[in-house]
Amino acid sequence: MTGTPEFQTALSEALIGRLRAGAEAMKPWLVQTRRNFHRRPEVGWREIETTRDIVAELSALGYRVTAGQDFLKSAVRLGMSIDPIPGEGDTGCIAVFDTGRPGPTVCLRVDIDALPIEEARGNHAPDAGGWRSERPGVMHACGHDGHIAIGLGVARLLRPLLDGLQGRVKLLFQPAEEGGRGARAVRDAGWVDDVDFLTAVHIGLGAASRVLAVGVHGFLATRKYRVLLSGRPAHAGVSPELGRNALLCACQMVLGLHALAQSSRPGIRVNVGTMTAGKSMNIVAEAARFDFEMRAVEGEDLDALERRCLRLIDSTADAHEIERAYQLLADVGPWTNTPGTSEWALGINRRVRAFPEELTSFNIGGGEDVTTLAARVAERGGQAAVYVVGADLADRHHTSHFDFDEDVLARSVLFLGAGLIDRLLAAPGAGR
Amino acid sequence: MTGTPEFQTALSEALIGRLRAGAEAMKPWLVQTRRNFHRRPEVGWREIETTRDIVAELSALGYRVTAGQDFLKSAVRLGMSIDPIPGEGDTGCIAVFDTGRPGPTVCLRVDIDALPIEEARGNHAPDAGGWRSERPGVMHACGHDGHIAIGLGVARLLRPLLDGLQGRVKLLFQPAEEGGRGARAVRDAGWVDDVDFLTAVHIGLGAASRVLAVGVHGFLATRKYRVLLSGRPAHAGVSPELGRNALLCACQMVLGLHALAQSSRPGIRVNVGTMTAGKSMNIVAEAARFDFEMRAVEGEDLDALERRCLRLIDSTADAHEIERAYQLLADVGPWTNTPGTSEWALGINRRVRAFPEELTSFNIGGGEDVTTLAARVAERGGQAAVYVVGADLADRHHTSHFDFDEDVLARSVLFLGAGLIDRLLAAPGAGR
Amino acid sequence: MTGTPEFQTALSEALIGRLRAGAEAMKPWLVQTRRNFHRRPEVGWREIETTRDIVAELSALGYRVTAGQDFLKSAVRLGMSIDPIPGEGDTGCIAVFDTGRPGPTVCLRVDIDALPIEEARGNHAPDAGGWRSERPGVMHACGHDGHIAIGLGVARLLRPLLDGLQGRVKLLFQPAEEGGRGARAVRDAGWVDDVDFLTAVHIGLGAASRVLAVGVHGFLATRKYRVLLSGRPAHAGVSPELGRNALLCACQMVLGLHALAQSSRPGIRVNVGTMTAGKSMNIVAEAARFDFEMRAVEGEDLDALERRCLRLIDSTADAHEIERAYQLLADVGPWTNTPGTSEWALGINRRVRAFPEELTSFNIGGGEDVTTLAARVAERGGQAAVYVVGADLADRHHTSHFDFDEDVLARSVLFLGAGLIDRLLAAPGAGR
Amino acid sequence: MTGTPEFQTALSEALIGRLRAGAEAMKPWLVQTRRNFHRRPEVGWREIETTRDIVAELSALGYRVTAGQDFLKSAVRLGMSIDPIPGEGDTGCIAVFDTGRPGPTVCLRVDIDALPIEEARGNHAPDAGGWRSERPGVMHACGHDGHIAIGLGVARLLRPLLDGLQGRVKLLFQPAEEGGRGARAVRDAGWVDDVDFLTAVHIGLGAASRVLAVGVHGFLATRKYRVLLSGRPAHAGVSPELGRNALLCACQMVLGLHALAQSSRPGIRVNVGTMTAGKSMNIVAEAARFDFEMRAVEGEDLDALERRCLRLIDSTADAHEIERAYQLLADVGPWTNTPGTSEWALGINRRVRAFPEELTSFNIGGGEDVTTLAARVAERGGQAAVYVVGADLADRHHTSHFDFDEDVLARSVLFLGAGLIDRLLAAPGAGR
Repeated sequence: MTGTPEFQTALSEALIGRLRAGAEAMKPWLVQTRRNFHRRPEVGWREIETTRDIVAELSALGYRVTAGQDFLKSAVRLGMSIDPIPGEGDTGCIAVFDTGRPGPTVCLRVDIDALPIEEARGNHAPDAGGWRSERPGVMHACGHDGHIAIGLGVARLLRPLLDGLQGRVKLLFQPAEEGGRGARAVRDAGWVDDVDFLTAVHIGLGAASRVLAVGVHGFLATRKYRVLLSGRPAHAGVSPELGRNALLCACQMVLGLHALAQSSRPGIRVNVGTMTAGKSMNIVAEAARFDFEMRAVEGEDLDALERRCLRLIDSTADAHEIERAYQLLADVGPWTNTPGTSEWALGINRRVRAFPEELTSFNIGGGEDVTTLAARVAERGGQAAVYVVGADLADRHHTSHFDFDEDVLARSVLFLGAGLIDRLLAAPGAGR
Repeated sequence: MTGTPEFQTALSEALIGRLRAGAEAMKPWLVQTRRNFHRRPEVGWREIETTRDIVAELSALGYRVTAGQDFLKSAVRLGMSIDPIPGEGDTGCIAVFDTGRPGPTVCLRVDIDALPIEEARGNHAPDAGGWRSERPGVMHACGHDGHIAIGLGVARLLRPLLDGLQGRVKLLFQPAEEGGRGARAVRDAGWVDDVDFLTAVHIGLGAASRVLAVGVHGFLATRKYRVLLSGRPAHAGVSPELGRNALLCACQMVLGLHALAQSSRPGIRVNVGTMTAGKSMNIVAEAARFDFEMRAVEGEDLDALERRCLRLIDSTADAHEIERAYQLLADVGPWTNTPGTSEWALGINRRVRAFPEELTSFNIGGGEDVTTLAARVAERGGQAAVYVVGADLADRHHTSHFDFDEDVLARSVLFLGAGLIDRLLAAPGAGR
Repeated sequence: MTGTPEFQTALSEALIGRLRAGAEAMKPWLVQTRRNFHRRPEVGWREIETTRDIVAELSALGYRVTAGQDFLKSAVRLGMSIDPIPGEGDTGCIAVFDTGRPGPTVCLRVDIDALPIEEARGNHAPDAGGWRSERPGVMHACGHDGHIAIGLGVARLLRPLLDGLQGRVKLLFQPAEEGGRGARAVRDAGWVDDVDFLTAVHIGLGAASRVLAVGVHGFLATRKYRVLLSGRPAHAGVSPELGRNALLCACQMVLGLHALAQSSRPGIRVNVGTMTAGKSMNIVAEAARFDFEMRAVEGEDLDALERRCLRLIDSTADAHEIERAYQLLADVGPWTNTPGTSEWALGINRRVRAFPEELTSFNIGGGEDVTTLAARVAERGGQAAVYVVGADLADRHHTSHFDFDEDVLARSVLFLGAGLIDRLLAAPGAGR
Repeated sequence: MTGTPEFQTALSEALIGRLRAGAEAMKPWLVQTRRNFHRRPEVGWREIETTRDIVAELSALGYRVTAGQDFLKSAVRLGMSIDPIPGEGDTGCIAVFDTGRPGPTVCLRVDIDALPIEEARGNHAPDAGGWRSERPGVMHACGHDGHIAIGLGVARLLRPLLDGLQGRVKLLFQPAEEGGRGARAVRDAGWVDDVDFLTAVHIGLGAASRVLAVGVHGFLATRKYRVLLSGRPAHAGVSPELGRNALLCACQMVLGLHALAQSSRPGIRVNVGTMTAGKSMNIVAEAARFDFEMRAVEGEDLDALERRCLRLIDSTADAHEIERAYQLLADVGPWTNTPGTSEWALGINRRVRAFPEELTSFNIGGGEDVTTLAARVAERGGQAAVYVVGADLADRHHTSHFDFDEDVLARSVLFLGAGLIDRLLAAPGAGR
């Protein structure tokens, strides 16, 4: 795959100069914005202050913003916490700018949630720099703080230029990406049904600083369940034989599920990530609960794996005379970027010189629930693509020492800003 | 074992009549008192309101009561909750009455804590009668509400009679019996060091209404641990092979521990009663925690079992490259009632006609941490005995439909009241 | 329990003297006989040479002996080996002597099989003495070689005395006691249907030399199964996900079964004793097979345990999509010696002074399939009892260093010989 | 990758015509030869009759053949059976033809062993056709019967042509490919040290009839171990607590090992393929043994996996107080065909029109121990490549219904014959 000679763009040199200058000037602000969000991380469905700050910024820029209950309306929120706090589930927002002229609808999607990880102290830049997480046990350990900064940076870069363009821009700040929950609600609320081109970037993932990776593939489809087990308690000393032990049953299930994952098929994974069982040492545990996820690259593989896992759970429950129930917590479908999107991205990047290095094939080997939105756009005839924007990392994603090279922020704003404008410069006939 | 002809007591017929009449008159009050405590159960180390009400009653009767931080002083409280609430750990109290005359020190020990069980609704007398637990998820499901009522009943029955006796009475309301935690703190605070005779009763345990069981044996010694495991998190989709899975390791331990319990030795039990592991479905679980207990009748068997269990935990952690730590949460030693206490109890019971039926041998097949106090008394040359006071049950101990025949309350007050007085009628030389 | 004054026997002093002298004279022969059988051990159903030698001895003494296919006829042989050798299953024999006079039928039952254990070398009396097992991997490690010697000794001691007695003697040399298989076939072949008194002894079991233990209790009822699992093979490298792994499923069952055994009920045990699975490292195992046993003291406990175990096996097979089948290999019922048999045995022992020490209560805590025969005798109105004849041991039963103090042999012959004669001296009316 | 214009061969049209005619004429003989070997399968290290027949054929053709103890000499044979039969381990052979003129040494390697699988009956061509395996439980279920026929066909096709060529031909019939054992012995015996070009083909593997697959990759490196566990036996009823259960320990290991295999790395697999444990149902199992294999594409991944697996085994043994030992049974290194070999193969195939269809990239996703030989050749500066020769299959490899389209035989002979001659036509200077 190479930058093909037929790449054409209406981006003028003047416009490119303006975009480059804008992105350059924005650097300190991007860093500061990212760090502000880094300091106050909130986990999925609870991005309450995060959303408030995003809405304030977007509104100030003159976008029409929809948030709160109007955003996701009555769409099902998979995998809410068991004891929701006020406002939980009504997070995220969308900013729309309609030029009023016929043209395509383009959408940049950004995810905003953090993870239930305690951020490291010592020998860790956020701690040294005074912008470590202020919230115990919660941390932006996957770069979504950077994504927010990029999204707001794009909003800022585009705003003065939009009046001369065609079509509409949607800037979508999606909650609850971790666990594959938020995109489904956004999709079901209809926000991408009219989108002609949807894009998103992810920071890091193993790509080095200064690299733009296109040809991103290997997205893992995933399905996640909560399993609830209910046995019969008994005094563990006096009459253990009268109990039906939900904790022991759950442990057998965990070993059985993890042993199912061996496969020659691509991307097969099973992970029981959490378990809670029993109440007291001297009672045979009556109840147990665990959450697990399955992954695969291909949809049929995921279906087959799900059948095996649920069968194993059902029958193991029978084996131990335990009642069970399960709830679907997340469901992210398989995905491949639509054709032509790699060539287009390389073309844009070379024009604006955002990233000096390129990778034309990149195995993401994980899930990103933007694929649920992308699949909807593709189903309805639009184009969609996810790119990886490289950044050297202090440690792996989802670990307490995670941090990334902030150089990626301005480069990403430049690349995305130029790309969206390129789409909106298209002749009116390009829209649907 | 039979009521031996040599049983002698100084209990006069007049005194017996007075005790019988007192116990009889007390019946409605005992039932009401038991139900009041039943409605407001509190788990071990959190018996804050329970203690307040007991102290109020005992003080009103004229006993000198020690409670709060003065009660357990700086003794170690094993197995406190992880997030203690204010006042937690400073529960329970002791009422002392000193006749001022030389004589023995006798102690009645009563336990006061409830269990983390949701009480049943419907077809359950406490619900039908309007005295079901008002505290969600907490229930007096082992009869300690009845024990409190009996203890206060004995306090009330004895009070007017104490002035004419010798020695001292201690009425000990011990917290945190469940899990075998409270008695050790009481012992370490020194409250039974000077006791010549210690006794306690337990309601139910399979003995039918109207039965007094002596020759109680088969007390299970127990040791309880919390195990903390720490692995290495990893993204479960992107790089599961980099994780070291604490949840999976814990499951292997649970199966290994439960398989260890097969034995021809008496009373061997292992129970992993609770587990909590992992934070997120898409992270290989970094941390896991579980609590387990071991039981045996003989001390050496318990020691051997503990060695095997801890070895299994250590090496299984190594197998999975997991760090581990453990804390002792409870430790209750083996116990056999001291010689002569069965014959004495039967003699008292026949004199006062408290229980019309008797069992001379009763396998308790469980633990009761009063044995920790009893062992201290016996070590220092005193006598100690635990009796079972029969009561038909609605369902087994530690289940949500547990309830007992309240007929046992007045019978127990009569039996214990008479027994304590008999001890205090002994010639002055009987004391130490 | 004590030797009751009402014990009466027709054993005259003269007869007792003759018995004592006979047993004394027999000592070297008993030792030699035991060692001969020790050298050539054969496992259950394969006691071919063992039976041949027993038949030769009994026939030479003038008993009428039934052996070969005439002995067990068409009775089902549980738990035969998978590849039977010629003659397998037609082992064991019965010697009958009928006095021709009306009287009771008394039966001594002896077991004759060895175990699949490699006998120790060095620091082991049979090795040092030149009478170690000549058969690799097979060993008399439970004392049945001694039982055979005792049985033949009794045959020899009784023979000259039988002509003057009443009723009939049956000397039953039963195959395949280990695993609880042979007695059921003997019972089904009808050999004990007419028995009025049946007895057996077991050497050792923790009783010291010179001790006769009566009041033997705690016999474990047992049921044993072979489980056959059949999955689906697959190339373990190329497409493991297509396999259904019978070996992995079997391992899950083993852990589940062993974890079921925790109980407050007496004598509950579960043991998976053997497993064979898979054929090749690079094939997902298609087949697995394991044998397990369950034990309990009470019949209902065994039934409940069996239901749980078979349910666990069925459902765990479902969980892994594995076909299963099982075969009952052994079934030994619960047992308690019939009333009066302890007092009688102590009376006989004191008369003949066979064992200088006595235990009046002895928990055997294991199974002995003679109880299947004893139960049939008791059902039909007869009496039956098993006694333990003490012998210091070199190591525990079923271990490679097992050996016993041969002093027990002559004492046992004396005790059993006297007891059987006592029964046959009873008035003619005593028979049925 | 495409047939590059620079492909040049000295194969004349006349020679090509002769090769095509020879292969065509050989068809019935190839089918018959394959079926003869199919009928008499022998597992690895036991290919005694197989070797005898191969040697006879090759000798008759005039090759110098080395077989028996002279073939593998004193090289270590990994993974021999536990009870070797006479001649076991001295199987396989090599035929050499030296032109006497300077030139390269080229080697065709063929594998000859069968699998421990019972061949299907009914609805299975070999059964219907009367050439089903005559050996119970053994079957050519991976196509090595076809490989032998191809190897002998090449020997026959080449023989009349060799006199005019340069260099040397080695036709290597290797034993014990299954399980990755034979190639290591062949390598250690030095047979490929002087080889300049080594090749091999494998039938089927998912490639359809008429397809030649080059660019074969994804070879799984593998290491296989036997694990021996030794615990402490005990009577399972009388004193299970004294036992240290090797069977239970092995089951824990199996579950632990299978749970280790989750990985994002290519080709990671763990399989415990066989287990044998315990001797008797009523003895706590003293001994257990299992064989397992690990696979990976990359050598470092295999090393890391091996460290984790062996650590898990060691520590789990400690956890259960079990002694352990292990033996390496097989070791196959990672492999990638040397550069240029795909283009060369396509060039040859197009010249001689052996296979009408081509695949230029093929993921084998399994192991083939020829890679051990190929790695040695590559290390010493030679070239080596494995190709897949397509054949429709009746069922998957390593299953009882496996069979392949015999059309592949003559095509393979033509392709390989032409290729080897092409190499031997090279100018003298091409040799080393």
